Amino acid sequence: MKKAIILLSGGLDSATCLAIAKIDGFKPYALSFRYGQRHEFELDSAKAVANSQGISDHVITNIDLRAFGGSALTDDIDVPKDRDESSISEDIPVTYVPARNTIFLSFSLAYAEVISANDIYIGVNAMDYSGYPDCRPEYINLFQNLANLATKSGVEGNNTITIHTPLIDMTKAEIIKKGMELGVDYSLTHSCYDPNDDGSPCGHCDACQLRLKGFEEAHLTDPLTYSN
Amino acid sequence: MKKAIILLSGGLDSATCLAIAKIDGFKPYALSFRYGQRHEFELDSAKAVANSQGISDHVITNIDLRAFGGSALTDDIDVPKDRDESSISEDIPVTYVPARNTIFLSFSLAYAEVISANDIYIGVNAMDYSGYPDCRPEYINLFQNLANLATKSGVEGNNTITIHTPLIDMTKAEIIKKGMELGVDYSLTHSCYDPNDDGSPCGHCDACQLRLKGFEEAHLTDPLTYSN
Repeated sequence: MKKAIILLSGGLDSATCLAIAKIDGFKPYALSFRYGQRHEFELDSAKAVANSQGISDHVITNIDLRAFGGSALTDDIDVPKDRDESSISEDIPVTYVPARNTIFLSFSLAYAEVISANDIYIGVNAMDYSGYPDCRPEYINLFQNLANLATKSGVEGNNTITIHTPLIDMTKAEIIKKGMELGVDYSLTHSCYDPNDDGSPCGHCDACQLRLKGFEEAHLTDPLTYSN
Repeated sequence: MKKAIILLSGGLDSATCLAIAKIDGFKPYALSFRYGQRHEFELDSAKAVANSQGISDHVITNIDLRAFGGSALTDDIDVPKDRDESSISEDIPVTYVPARNTIFLSFSLAYAEVISANDIYIGVNAMDYSGYPDCRPEYINLFQNLANLATKSGVEGNNTITIHTPLIDMTKAEIIKKGMELGVDYSLTHSCYDPNDDGSPCGHCDACQLRLKGFEEAHLTDPLTYSN
């Protein structure tokens, strides 16, 4: 069975991506990061999602993005709330973490090389997050080219890396419908940028708003409890 | 004064690279990694090199490459000794750390983005390390293209990232001569892959052999003391 690395944040997108990698016929190796994010809830979700989908290989690696700061997710910058939809889709938000996907993909490449996997899944979603430069298809394509120049296997010519982005053309509603078909338990996932002390989602940050709108458009109910 | 990020390992190449960035007119921001390497000597060297060149901004960030292993530098694999020159230059050695430069450059990109720097220096050296895929000029060029797609500043079109590789066509002897001209104190640098308990270099690993050969060809004396 061919191996694939799945970048697993514990959010809705990566949980769906993991389920898709499985039906694509891969043995998934999940990779998550403790990167200096404000809270550990998303790692708890990543573990719960991996367990619920029967994944035995799940590496959580420590990296220190707080050494640089520069984002509302890794620095003392307020997470914006209740923004209108056009702002969410047009601006690069303060929750953008500089070079995060480049860093995450670099680590997935290291992991792939060590276990001799040729496939990497990342749940980027150009429709919803048009504001994030490192979610765009042209960025992903270029990273794939880089991966094939960067590695021992690429040099030896006996392997090539493919970066899979199965969600890239899907709306949040389509992702949720796909995940429900595949049996993804969205009650285990975590999307909020600024959760309450008990881990419950705020309901007002961009991530919560996009998630709630996705469930609404899919005519489904979000299993999470929003506290306010 | 324009800012530049310098990837600083504490080795001979990166110490020279730092001195070159300074004469190129940049204010250097040094970046080093505690990445699960076998010993901390190289970080002590990185600090000493930064201090000796008057660098006040030096970030040492923690990343965990041991989570994956796969290299003699991050795993329990023996470092090869006393290899002949053709083996050193032809094979991809076990001291190759999967995707290391991709990871290091990704972090330098994050740092550059946070401090609004457009320039990154890396001391790769295609002549000596032809065995490392992620030291080749075509790899570096592609990373530069990626960097300009990956970032907020790239999207906004008001900045572009340049990856500087001033050593890429130089032999080790030429690097040493250049560094001596610029006043680099090589007694502070550390190259050995497998140092003795007191931090002194082994003299037999690939890195020691390339270093010693470089000093010999430059008709200079390596200021380090080799214990055996």
